[in-house]
Amino acid sequence: MTPVLNANASAPIVLGVDLGGTKLAVGLVDSTGRLLHADRAPTLSHEGPARIVQRLIELCRRVMEVGAPAGNIAAIGIGCAGQIDSGAGIVRNPANIPNWGEVPLVSLLSDALGAPGYIENDANAAALGEHRFGAGRGARNMVYMTISTGVGGGVIIDDKLYRGENGNAAELGHITVDYRGRRCPCGCIGCLELYASGSAIAAEARALIQGGLSSSMTAAAGSVDVITGRHVVEALRQGDAVARQVWDGVLPILGAGVVSVIHAFNPSRIVIGGGIAQAGELLFAPLRDYVARHTIPIMARVVELVEARLADQGGIYGAAAVAIQNC
Amino acid sequence: MTPVLNANASAPIVLGVDLGGTKLAVGLVDSTGRLLHADRAPTLSHEGPARIVQRLIELCRRVMEVGAPAGNIAAIGIGCAGQIDSGAGIVRNPANIPNWGEVPLVSLLSDALGAPGYIENDANAAALGEHRFGAGRGARNMVYMTISTGVGGGVIIDDKLYRGENGNAAELGHITVDYRGRRCPCGCIGCLELYASGSAIAAEARALIQGGLSSSMTAAAGSVDVITGRHVVEALRQGDAVARQVWDGVLPILGAGVVSVIHAFNPSRIVIGGGIAQAGELLFAPLRDYVARHTIPIMARVVELVEARLADQGGIYGAAAVAIQNC
Repeated sequence: MTPVLNANASAPIVLGVDLGGTKLAVGLVDSTGRLLHADRAPTLSHEGPARIVQRLIELCRRVMEVGAPAGNIAAIGIGCAGQIDSGAGIVRNPANIPNWGEVPLVSLLSDALGAPGYIENDANAAALGEHRFGAGRGARNMVYMTISTGVGGGVIIDDKLYRGENGNAAELGHITVDYRGRRCPCGCIGCLELYASGSAIAAEARALIQGGLSSSMTAAAGSVDVITGRHVVEALRQGDAVARQVWDGVLPILGAGVVSVIHAFNPSRIVIGGGIAQAGELLFAPLRDYVARHTIPIMARVVELVEARLADQGGIYGAAAVAIQNC
Repeated sequence: MTPVLNANASAPIVLGVDLGGTKLAVGLVDSTGRLLHADRAPTLSHEGPARIVQRLIELCRRVMEVGAPAGNIAAIGIGCAGQIDSGAGIVRNPANIPNWGEVPLVSLLSDALGAPGYIENDANAAALGEHRFGAGRGARNMVYMTISTGVGGGVIIDDKLYRGENGNAAELGHITVDYRGRRCPCGCIGCLELYASGSAIAAEARALIQGGLSSSMTAAAGSVDVITGRHVVEALRQGDAVARQVWDGVLPILGAGVVSVIHAFNPSRIVIGGGIAQAGELLFAPLRDYVARHTIPIMARVVELVEARLADQGGIYGAAAVAIQNC
């Protein structure tokens, strides 16, 4: 028995399961936000869904043995990239895990672990996590945006996740910021994600360097071809001129996207996470300035832009929040 | 007594009040959607708020004398352009009525007519009206867009109006479709309304004609300077080449706006009203085609685009729906 871990016996404990393309992360969280125990393992996505799910169940059992030895978890929450049918509990072709097909992940975990399970896509889960445990606490109408490899979002309305008609609301990376722009793989024209994602920022930096500009990013990454969004953020912090040029180009595009989100949802808080948000004030100061200058004043007055707070544990906390909202 | 009008005695009767810049419209509606009696009068906006409100109250009394002689109305609903503080019941500087200031319209009407009053901006009221009585019936998650002098919107989520943090959600005319575009009077860059409103469409037609093209719109309007969006729609119906050129230019912009709205809200229905929507299939056929080609398929599958149905009575029905949702 581990009395310290179960000190708050009245707070239900849930299992948060974050299924990503490169890692599996599992943690026990109580409803007050205490992370009781967590562990992680590589996804090894090439092994296929049957083995991934088996190893995921084993990881869950190991975490429960330490953090909830009485087996008393109230629910299992799952966050996963890709198309989710949250009603049926099915994951279809998650991003970055090939040959997945359709897997009834909720019933598989639920049967194996003996607790009801619930699932949301990773951006919706992160929105719920930040709202309950992180930078969104207390905001009744909150928008979460993630600027990472792609751009995603999740919307909290009246303290509840807004799913839309079939669970796909808040695809905020796929609102048009340039109606004459390029076609996005999603089908849409000139999507925000095409210009303001980590991938887009990295591609712009690589293009400038390949066009002849010199940058510290080349040495930092080892080769121009493997420069990522994080290299751009790091070089920006160090005053690199190419990184600054890329950043100055992306800010008004990201700003336009954020203002569109404000004008659509009139939220009181926008929480921004993902690797690019780790630029901190280099992102938030100019973005707040853009919003102040370009938002309808009556809406600008009530909204604040803040950085996501859960960082590396965001996946587990988000999945835990999915479970808690269903408890 | 008028037994025909009060045939359905169990259905509560509400008074719908539509305060516009050019006309006042008032009607009695029961909760089944029967319009029992209605009347209208010019706003005479130059007369100032005190006289406008006085004449509005007189109009309400005349309508109630005929349609609800027992005075048994359950509530008053008000729809009005401009900034509304729906909680406090105040209208601030409504569009097209100069020198208005702040008027506590709800308490003035409520005290004079002896029933509780509620107010929303005109686009939110129209959304509620279409949802309860018109083309949005049965759609749990519905977006209403109006394409008129400006572009506005209202969003129904889980069968309820979504107001946002301070009542200003769904300013759908002010989402960016061109981040490098012109600055809108609202402060935002490249707003949908700048390119796809009735005013924008008319301005484009006038510019083409003033640039040397010949069009039937000039004779129809009497002069190039007074061509409006409705003239463009009428000329389009008759096969006018300049109107067609304007239309072909605006469709992909409007399409991008509609797709952004779908990707943000994942609705099951988008109801489009306003003067430009009266183009009917000339608008809806190409817009549906654009949406089918440029929307994320899982969201395209569940959404339909339909024309608003309440037309000229939309203001009264919208205001009545504002009252009913508060009954």
